[in-house]
Amino acid sequence: MSGPPLRVAVLGAGVVGREVIRAFLERPEALRTADGAPLELVGVAVRDVQQAAEGGIPAHLLTDAPAHLVAAQATDIVVELMGGEEPARTILSAALGAGKSVVSANKLVLARHGAALEDAARRNGAFLRFEAAVGGGTPVLSPLAEGLGSDRLTRIRGIVNGTTNLLLTDMAERGTAYTDALRRAKRAGYAEADPASDVEGHDAAYKLVILARLGFGVWLDPDRVPRTGARADGEPGPAGILGVSPEDLAAATEAGLAIRLIARAELVRGGRIAAAVVPAAVPSGSAFGRTVGVGNRVEVEAAPIGRVAFEGPGAGGASTSSAILADLRAIARHAGSTWAGLAPARASADVAAFPAPRAGHLDAPSGARYPILD
Amino acid sequence: MSGPPLRVAVLGAGVVGREVIRAFLERPEALRTADGAPLELVGVAVRDVQQAAEGGIPAHLLTDAPAHLVAAQATDIVVELMGGEEPARTILSAALGAGKSVVSANKLVLARHGAALEDAARRNGAFLRFEAAVGGGTPVLSPLAEGLGSDRLTRIRGIVNGTTNLLLTDMAERGTAYTDALRRAKRAGYAEADPASDVEGHDAAYKLVILARLGFGVWLDPDRVPRTGARADGEPGPAGILGVSPEDLAAATEAGLAIRLIARAELVRGGRIAAAVVPAAVPSGSAFGRTVGVGNRVEVEAAPIGRVAFEGPGAGGASTSSAILADLRAIARHAGSTWAGLAPARASADVAAFPAPRAGHLDAPSGARYPILD
Repeated sequence: MSGPPLRVAVLGAGVVGREVIRAFLERPEALRTADGAPLELVGVAVRDVQQAAEGGIPAHLLTDAPAHLVAAQATDIVVELMGGEEPARTILSAALGAGKSVVSANKLVLARHGAALEDAARRNGAFLRFEAAVGGGTPVLSPLAEGLGSDRLTRIRGIVNGTTNLLLTDMAERGTAYTDALRRAKRAGYAEADPASDVEGHDAAYKLVILARLGFGVWLDPDRVPRTGARADGEPGPAGILGVSPEDLAAATEAGLAIRLIARAELVRGGRIAAAVVPAAVPSGSAFGRTVGVGNRVEVEAAPIGRVAFEGPGAGGASTSSAILADLRAIARHAGSTWAGLAPARASADVAAFPAPRAGHLDAPSGARYPILD
Repeated sequence: MSGPPLRVAVLGAGVVGREVIRAFLERPEALRTADGAPLELVGVAVRDVQQAAEGGIPAHLLTDAPAHLVAAQATDIVVELMGGEEPARTILSAALGAGKSVVSANKLVLARHGAALEDAARRNGAFLRFEAAVGGGTPVLSPLAEGLGSDRLTRIRGIVNGTTNLLLTDMAERGTAYTDALRRAKRAGYAEADPASDVEGHDAAYKLVILARLGFGVWLDPDRVPRTGARADGEPGPAGILGVSPEDLAAATEAGLAIRLIARAELVRGGRIAAAVVPAAVPSGSAFGRTVGVGNRVEVEAAPIGRVAFEGPGAGGASTSSAILADLRAIARHAGSTWAGLAPARASADVAAFPAPRAGHLDAPSGARYPILD
């Protein structure tokens, strides 16, 4: 009855990769195509084969040559969990070019090269899915693309970076400095050795570009998405959360506010899209104010539906593997790419500025000026 | 290039139906199959043809014979928005039996006859989608079935009935009696002439059965889902929110709590499912406590992902039409039924009782005992 197996190659065996591999080895019956054929793990590409084998991944699956694994005739679907720009971009591009479907969590590559990858997928009849790139395991992208596919989006706002949200929460609660909070987050495994991509807002900007593609039908250039705060003297502030001081957080708390790194994109005049990643003040009791620790929350305004929101853990290997497996199952049942029934997106270097927020500003002790978002 | 059009019949032209019809007439380019063929509206079944024609629906589409419209060779997909048990159940069953895919918002029919309808859909290769049955237009069911399809659910909790949530919010804010709040809700179009299905918890119980099917793989018998409150003297209280007095709400507020009608289902000992729709007390500042008016919120606990939540407007014709159109587009691109890649569900008459809540009870002035849900 069932067709031939779908053969899956996994690139990268970090926290998420190991959970995905474990699902193949321990619960293979849960991974099947629409007509009952199994999904088979045919290879795992890692940097250090010996270390991976010692970590419990069957040796016969291991290779340190990801490009060869992807090109192999025995590979139908590629799960890319390597991270970083290269060789990931080249490998994904080659896979799609060969008509092989791809599941990726690589927000950097998707944000920087999304338009080209989408084009390659469409031209070669391959599927590209990337639910895990935003919100960790929390379903956000597919509901946006499919559930709201007939709506006209006007605004997306989100706390999409768990690391910075944990740092801001911790600093506000304990009144400690950024460096202390960062040390604690690193110890708990929630911040990387080099935290620049998180704390400077780059990671959030990549995720915003991906959300905007599904919400507004355009691939924005992530390098044009501002990710600096503002100062009361009119000068740009430091990037991401780097300008947020314990005194700022205390002043915000005093005013019934909380400071959060908010990724925002809006449809503004002339059909242009404004986009930015900014430290902003939100009411402490609001849903964003109550999003603490590594939690993520994405709010969407759209017509006719109104405001909808998605919440969940934004990080963690086991949690994120849930989205990777969901994408694999979706490909196995021919559900298409993450953009599903949406029209092809165009690339755009045009990023508009936001109008001034209605709720005003918080001028903080450090000299930073935080827009108040209601 | 494109295949033949997919021909759609709409049954019912109430608030939601009219929005769906409007989408066909005003934005037909947004409704296409995967290979670019159009979705065509071929008929609209209503009770009063003349009234519908006067309301602006093209006369040549109208009929008062839904069963004939469904049986017609010119109909490929049926959108059922009639509501009520019969003739909706018979018509849906006939459509699926003939291999025609169905989009329905009919939670009563789905909850009572879901097992039989799922069986009919699977046997005949037809798709059955019902995103609009829970959460209005808010994507909840597909994210649960697809995004969390590889997770093991342990708990579902939701505010899934907008009418009762509006009544409870209004009563608490104004200190007014149920009858006053109901009068206002009716005037605003948020309560039906006969509000029994909402205020007695039946509507929420149907939605809970649908959520449990996708989360736990079982069609519970809605008649076995308790929907009565409890009294401090051990007796069962009135159904749904009927026992909630303004004094109870004031006592809850005093204690930092809010009373909400919570639909809950949990995996308990022995793999059994506990399910109930109960008026419960939640912390005022919690996400459920902050869900006011006709807002809906569904929280899911699952492994490995953790806790995820979906929020949005739970009612309104325009909003709900968003989910109907999303389901139509999903069928048009062969994305399958709402249960997507999940295993077939079994029907079960076994509904377990909940263990006592960890956070205790609120014994209210009226003699009602509200479990405190954290």
